[in-house]
Amino acid sequence: MAQLIEELFAAAFDNEYLAQGNDGAVLAMPSAGGRLVMATDAHVVSPLFFPGGDIGCLSVHGTVNDVAVMGARPLWLAASFVLEEGFPLSDLKRIVESMANAAKSAGVSVVTGDTKVVERGKGDGVFITTTGVGVLPKGLDLSGNKATPGDVILLSGTIGDHGMAIMSKRENLAFDAPIESDTAALHGLVADMLASGSGIRVLRDPTRGGLATTLNEIAKQSGVGMQLDESSIPVRPVVDAACEFLGLDPLYIANEGKLVAICAPEDAGGLLAVMRAHPLGRESAIIGTVHADPHHFVQMKTRFGGRRNVDWLSGEQLPRIC
Amino acid sequence: MAQLIEELFAAAFDNEYLAQGNDGAVLAMPSAGGRLVMATDAHVVSPLFFPGGDIGCLSVHGTVNDVAVMGARPLWLAASFVLEEGFPLSDLKRIVESMANAAKSAGVSVVTGDTKVVERGKGDGVFITTTGVGVLPKGLDLSGNKATPGDVILLSGTIGDHGMAIMSKRENLAFDAPIESDTAALHGLVADMLASGSGIRVLRDPTRGGLATTLNEIAKQSGVGMQLDESSIPVRPVVDAACEFLGLDPLYIANEGKLVAICAPEDAGGLLAVMRAHPLGRESAIIGTVHADPHHFVQMKTRFGGRRNVDWLSGEQLPRIC
Repeated sequence: MAQLIEELFAAAFDNEYLAQGNDGAVLAMPSAGGRLVMATDAHVVSPLFFPGGDIGCLSVHGTVNDVAVMGARPLWLAASFVLEEGFPLSDLKRIVESMANAAKSAGVSVVTGDTKVVERGKGDGVFITTTGVGVLPKGLDLSGNKATPGDVILLSGTIGDHGMAIMSKRENLAFDAPIESDTAALHGLVADMLASGSGIRVLRDPTRGGLATTLNEIAKQSGVGMQLDESSIPVRPVVDAACEFLGLDPLYIANEGKLVAICAPEDAGGLLAVMRAHPLGRESAIIGTVHADPHHFVQMKTRFGGRRNVDWLSGEQLPRIC
Repeated sequence: MAQLIEELFAAAFDNEYLAQGNDGAVLAMPSAGGRLVMATDAHVVSPLFFPGGDIGCLSVHGTVNDVAVMGARPLWLAASFVLEEGFPLSDLKRIVESMANAAKSAGVSVVTGDTKVVERGKGDGVFITTTGVGVLPKGLDLSGNKATPGDVILLSGTIGDHGMAIMSKRENLAFDAPIESDTAALHGLVADMLASGSGIRVLRDPTRGGLATTLNEIAKQSGVGMQLDESSIPVRPVVDAACEFLGLDPLYIANEGKLVAICAPEDAGGLLAVMRAHPLGRESAIIGTVHADPHHFVQMKTRFGGRRNVDWLSGEQLPRIC
């Protein structure tokens, strides 16, 4: 079994680093180096396979995106697997191949890995932790604490798709139009945005806890308030309907292929055009602005012209959404 | 709960990288840079607390050692946690503080992390994946494929301590002398060995599968055979007794604070002296030699003067030993 798994990984992730055959991979720093970005994510999504993706590609996208939104070019991934005894090798193969394809598309190599097996009932199929390292260009300094009053908030597309794809599958909901996860690697979109020379101050991918949580985090980190315009936030009608049916708010639902960007007002138009020109940013929109606010509130003008606080999530987040 | 956990981590791992507060950490490459080493390990040890350690310090040592035996100086760790719902916060606190102490002792910073929670019965307390990155000095090139006929094999101390500490605790075995895990960070021992200028070709830590598995891996990778002398391999009498009682062979039992070194014969004496001068290498020994062998057999002269093959493990490895 151990040997089968090893052969599976070796075949799927085939690269010069894994071929070194040691417990750690030796990596040559690109000469551009100077600073690195490191990010890690545990993936425990349930079900393992869902419309639009699976835990394999998700585990690559999740970490690639965490590295990319820091402005870094993702280069290397480490992958660790916790398998439940009896997990079908055919499922593992499908997952590993999905990871390998996602890594290839994202231009990253899975350079090292580890697998552990736990007894039946002590795990749940497979959990995958990926850790990514990327190289950060000189002079670039994006961070959640850089939002400034007057700045404009952009979003790269519709919200709630990933979380509602998982929930629909879990609840066996069927809609006329299927809800698919938006899971995708955002490194290319980020690269275009950075290359445009727009004065981006903050980039972040609104995953667990959704757009509302991400914006509250940034507001707190930067010590500012935000004003959103609900009518400008793209939500697919089917996602909206599913949310209403399940009593959920799309603002709090996880995304896996979207990003939030915050920039100076004079850069917003140009940045929006660059984002819309990328396949993963076609539905990008300006969704709000940053204000001075000692309470760091995120507020929203509703579709009906009212105004409400978009607060931190008060209850529990949806479990095992990523 | 999520907030409590975050505060726990922030307090324990307090450092400039975590304080950045973003999903990825920005790291300044030391100017010595050029090459990096990256390694990852999932830790699922059961029980979580055992004589001589716990999953917290183990998860730091395991990855620090994988980086160190490549010759690199470990610098940064990423940590991901998969918690089972209902896991006592007091246990988590103990584990995280143990990680923080181990990281501090090893001179590494836990720069980024992630936590996921799974339902009761879908996990087992806590699983921890750590990923380490270190800097590899110029010109240093250790690898499992560099063992050469004539080389000498050194071991840094007794074998089987970690695995038998776990097994004894699991089986509720009581001995006059308690068996303690050898879990320790080997970066300091490795640094002394490298600084000595000895021509080390291979370093590896014999963890899962024990000394026998590690030597077979190296023999296969290097395309050589090995000849061991059983009487020179240090085993604590209490570990030997416990192994005999449970029908186990110490050669196949996991270690978490030992390393194997392979060097040219003319360097072996000097290297042994350097290893013995370090607190974690006091019981170091020369345990065998490398030979030309197209079958890549690891053979051993037994204590009784016989000769036997030290084969790859034929059955299953002890589960959840690390």
